[in-house]
Amino acid sequence: MSKVIFDIAVSLDGFLAGEHRGPQNPLGDKGTTLHHWMYGQKAFWGMMDIDRGEEGPENDLVKAVIARSGAFIMGKRMFEEGEAHWPDDLFKADVYVLTHEPRAPWVQKGSTTFHFITEGIDQALELARKSAKGKDVRIQGGGETIRAYLNAGYIDEAMVHIAPVLLGSGIRLFDNITDGLYDIAVKATSHSPLAAHITYTFKRK
Amino acid sequence: MSKVIFDIAVSLDGFLAGEHRGPQNPLGDKGTTLHHWMYGQKAFWGMMDIDRGEEGPENDLVKAVIARSGAFIMGKRMFEEGEAHWPDDLFKADVYVLTHEPRAPWVQKGSTTFHFITEGIDQALELARKSAKGKDVRIQGGGETIRAYLNAGYIDEAMVHIAPVLLGSGIRLFDNITDGLYDIAVKATSHSPLAAHITYTFKRK
Repeated sequence: MSKVIFDIAVSLDGFLAGEHRGPQNPLGDKGTTLHHWMYGQKAFWGMMDIDRGEEGPENDLVKAVIARSGAFIMGKRMFEEGEAHWPDDLFKADVYVLTHEPRAPWVQKGSTTFHFITEGIDQALELARKSAKGKDVRIQGGGETIRAYLNAGYIDEAMVHIAPVLLGSGIRLFDNITDGLYDIAVKATSHSPLAAHITYTFKRK
Repeated sequence: MSKVIFDIAVSLDGFLAGEHRGPQNPLGDKGTTLHHWMYGQKAFWGMMDIDRGEEGPENDLVKAVIARSGAFIMGKRMFEEGEAHWPDDLFKADVYVLTHEPRAPWVQKGSTTFHFITEGIDQALELARKSAKGKDVRIQGGGETIRAYLNAGYIDEAMVHIAPVLLGSGIRLFDNITDGLYDIAVKATSHSPLAAHITYTFKRK
């Protein structure tokens, strides 16, 4: 059964991005330290790169997440910040971008097509589920988009990567989550010195 | 080499206690859900109970923490909240209570003695280290006491138990930590459905 999943890196003090976030500083001050466990410039843009060619215990984890994802959903800001930086066909699947501005699909060489959805998160998910053909739908981010799907009760599973750094301030993932929507359980843990990886299952009450 | 350690349970959204904390509600609203993985009433008072006689993967973890602790340090509020509830000789070691009011040591049957320290955290740690005789010194809590030792640069290792619950508001452990004091690394992870356990090492820069 296709699941709706997300995974996100946060600091030890719970921030998914630092202060002063913007197009030239997409994860905010010190935010790139959240992704040292993934290495690679591409990680700065919110995408794990299956082709980075690196070895290590966390490479399997990255590959597994990519392999199970049949479609992606992301917010407009993540798209706009990433658009100029992502290599062609990074996602290798349909990507649904939540926006208020209609735009024709952007078909890349390979198998990545960006679709621009103006009808909201329900429609995006419906289309992504169809496109995923039984694979999982990954809510790519950013934080507000993940929060929207969490609060709509759609999330089935999430992997949180805790980097052992303190940002001190910034944006928190789990602020303003509607109370009592889910029974949450810990499904798996793993680690390297640079991150603890925790998989949670979310079951709608 | 004797280490200075702490361990603490927090919610998925990072709170060590909920709102409306007080003597009759020591972990605040919904705070007891942070300790479901430990079970047992005693857990509510901030102490793991080696004698609870339960089986399970987390029993070993609790036993290991107790076995390595040769002395304890706690804040006055934790002591006052726990005093009426703890069974005799729960700690089986010297406990140093940070306070501003001098008081004669409280010697319990068995091997627990509470010492009341008015000279601050440095003195408490110096005495606790001597008493621990090569075992570790455990900063028992509460959050403010742990934060004081973190910010003084004394912490060597910590285990954070993340319970998969959302409190929504309350007190955060990692607020107001001095920036850049430590290099932190993930040392170990384990889990049950009710908690992810992450051990971090703290190395003073």
